[in-house]
Amino acid sequence: MHDLKAVPRELPAACVQALAARFGDRFSQSTAVCEHHGRDESPYPTMPPQGVVFAESTEDVAGVAALCNAHRVPLIAYGAGSSLEGNFLAVEGGIVVDLSRMNRILSVHSEDLTVTVQAGVTRKQLNDEIRDTGLFFPIDPGADASLGGMCATRASGTNAVRYGTMRENVLNLTVVTPAGDIVHTARRARKSSAGYDLTRLYVGSEGTLGIITEATVRLYPQPEAVSAAVCHFPSVDDAVAAVIEVIQLGVPIARVELMDANGVKAVNNYSKLALRESPLLLFEFHGTAAGVKEQAALVQEIASSHGGEDFEWAERPEDRTRLWSARHTAYFAGLQMRPGCRASTTDVCVPISRLADCIAQTNEDLVKASFPSLIVGHVGDGNFHVQMLLDPESETEFEEAEALNHRIVERALAMDGTCTGEHGVGLHKMQFMHAEHGDEGVAVMRALKHALDPNNILNPGKIVSWLA
Amino acid sequence: MHDLKAVPRELPAACVQALAARFGDRFSQSTAVCEHHGRDESPYPTMPPQGVVFAESTEDVAGVAALCNAHRVPLIAYGAGSSLEGNFLAVEGGIVVDLSRMNRILSVHSEDLTVTVQAGVTRKQLNDEIRDTGLFFPIDPGADASLGGMCATRASGTNAVRYGTMRENVLNLTVVTPAGDIVHTARRARKSSAGYDLTRLYVGSEGTLGIITEATVRLYPQPEAVSAAVCHFPSVDDAVAAVIEVIQLGVPIARVELMDANGVKAVNNYSKLALRESPLLLFEFHGTAAGVKEQAALVQEIASSHGGEDFEWAERPEDRTRLWSARHTAYFAGLQMRPGCRASTTDVCVPISRLADCIAQTNEDLVKASFPSLIVGHVGDGNFHVQMLLDPESETEFEEAEALNHRIVERALAMDGTCTGEHGVGLHKMQFMHAEHGDEGVAVMRALKHALDPNNILNPGKIVSWLA
Repeated sequence: MHDLKAVPRELPAACVQALAARFGDRFSQSTAVCEHHGRDESPYPTMPPQGVVFAESTEDVAGVAALCNAHRVPLIAYGAGSSLEGNFLAVEGGIVVDLSRMNRILSVHSEDLTVTVQAGVTRKQLNDEIRDTGLFFPIDPGADASLGGMCATRASGTNAVRYGTMRENVLNLTVVTPAGDIVHTARRARKSSAGYDLTRLYVGSEGTLGIITEATVRLYPQPEAVSAAVCHFPSVDDAVAAVIEVIQLGVPIARVELMDANGVKAVNNYSKLALRESPLLLFEFHGTAAGVKEQAALVQEIASSHGGEDFEWAERPEDRTRLWSARHTAYFAGLQMRPGCRASTTDVCVPISRLADCIAQTNEDLVKASFPSLIVGHVGDGNFHVQMLLDPESETEFEEAEALNHRIVERALAMDGTCTGEHGVGLHKMQFMHAEHGDEGVAVMRALKHALDPNNILNPGKIVSWLA
Repeated sequence: MHDLKAVPRELPAACVQALAARFGDRFSQSTAVCEHHGRDESPYPTMPPQGVVFAESTEDVAGVAALCNAHRVPLIAYGAGSSLEGNFLAVEGGIVVDLSRMNRILSVHSEDLTVTVQAGVTRKQLNDEIRDTGLFFPIDPGADASLGGMCATRASGTNAVRYGTMRENVLNLTVVTPAGDIVHTARRARKSSAGYDLTRLYVGSEGTLGIITEATVRLYPQPEAVSAAVCHFPSVDDAVAAVIEVIQLGVPIARVELMDANGVKAVNNYSKLALRESPLLLFEFHGTAAGVKEQAALVQEIASSHGGEDFEWAERPEDRTRLWSARHTAYFAGLQMRPGCRASTTDVCVPISRLADCIAQTNEDLVKASFPSLIVGHVGDGNFHVQMLLDPESETEFEEAEALNHRIVERALAMDGTCTGEHGVGLHKMQFMHAEHGDEGVAVMRALKHALDPNNILNPGKIVSWLA
């Protein structure tokens, strides 16, 4: 991955002229702008597009699409740039359409618990702007991602164990097709059986089938009571066993996050905390005051029976914020463990009964590695991440990390799991698509791509290869 | 709809011979068998296939598919026959593959809260067979539908307000393509971002893109405590207003069903009950003992503030069963209101803030109609059904019912709702697909159909027309 090179297609001068004519100074080919739009949080080298359009409306996006399609020029959507697997890198060059100026909340229907936003709205912005309604949008991937990007990668994060992923929380989308048509995937009803599920077709398609420009998502009442707790365990195994029991009993926990000892060490350093440096679980409970108390008591009992101790409660919002921002900055905290490093992450998800085994075997691999690493996980879903901290100059470390990534993914697949729980396929997981979906599944995906993007202009070279 | 005629394609003798050779007496062309497989619960006339294969395995289905595809013969999947909108009627003739013998539960993973079943397993059978695990499968469309059929129509029902629909509860599917390939749509992990969401592509596709032969679905712990209650309201409006407030407050009710006065009258007669014949809500609460008590108290308070009275609790399982079976038999109870009638149902779903208006305006239409009718609804989702009881000999009543159906659907669409919340498109809702999805949305659906069923053999003439 370290030395992957982009192979740009030819960008016809007529296309450039048409973009400049239509978008004026909202179209840029400057090196700085193109490079900024050609790198994400992955360790892939920068792969810049040949031009960037700053869109301000769905019609702008439709205009760019029609032009690119006519000229067979790649077109890639860009939201907040926070993806982790090379998801939007311009491996075949082309035009990036930057949606960050499409940052308006279009309508809040608080009585229906829905909100419609432009794709560039970020999740923090959304929650800030709707705070007064008494509602909130729960999906929380850590980064302040854009809603469009979160739809496109089928994001989830810490709250998914209770509130689901983007898959469950998007009611409808506005999507621009490569020909520049505008599709509204569904109405605002909570459920429908009216034909093919176009919403779910585009959710998780990473900009390869259409460009998401607006989304209507579900909101939830802010819980009457919230409480959080940290609990330490003698081993990762014990912590995971506790989580499995909590899930099996149907306790409606809002969040449950695992950090291994290395992860705790990293956040202690980075966030100036003094957590005991052993595996821990970070819980959050949402509900009525009585309900939260009941959940918490049950979880504490389960945790204790698995060796959990030093239960530390955070009832005050500022204490909760401190704990959860420590968790949210774990990625950056990890980077600080080895100054100057680049992180390679992986993100598998397995049936929860296999999670303890999967993490234990992964840990055996990691302790033998020649670089530091840490494990964090949304363990209520069976999802965990490994962050490997690599010397950016060392080819051998990258190779070793890739070999480890292979072993981790193959192990997850052997346990009936998936190669990515929430980061998406991007460039990094394409190599596992046949192993995960079989030739038949990949053939169906390819047929979908050919049907909906017949000129292969939308984020080409991602998810599945164009040719069999 | 009353006088719609099937136009069978030619069935080549070579295809018949090949089916007979492969399936022996599991292939039938008898009139009785074909007619049985050519009618559902809709008022459409019987449209029999030209032959029926009783499949016992995914490989059987793949074999039928490959044969039908080679001969360009229509192929239609049949589960329990309980659909309501003509969903599987053989409008172009062809072969039905009956999946009811594929009724094995393949694996229960109780520690993961998942079960894998063959498509012919019915929901009651499933819950009977897994009772000892302490888990249950919540989706409950009323009829004892097959799991394959429930996947194919994206079914939901009374529990969806708490547990979601089939969309949210299917983890993966085994699907046979028209060419006879076998696709596994996903792994058993709770979430994944590994490419296009093939599971959701087939859920709700009504057998037009592939034939579902196995499904892995989510299970839930049987709640520690369950309680149910009936509450009467002065008007449908008041009842709906109470539901809206309950939803907006985020009370995690498991079920909330509306019946209008006609509906109550029908179930009183049919189920020998003595419920007051006014609009009522039927609630069910799931949770811990304390949680259920808390929810119930809050809901009672909200209901009272909207004129709800005569709260009647059913704590004992036998009392709950009596109430809920009354609700579940409402369809048959309705039929008894007018002996010898046929029912035409419709099934719209709107954002919940529009529900009271939508039902009130619908009711104004219904009181003017020349036939009896009743309204029942899964009002927590904004979904309701109108059952119109028609004289099967009266062309004018069918025409009047169709005109009413049009008005109801157009009203729902104007309120940003959908033409079908859970019954599927079948034959009856195809006429509304352009109005609901726009030409662009229908074009995407047609492109999907062309890509995945290029010879148009799978349940042809459904969802969207083959030609634009």
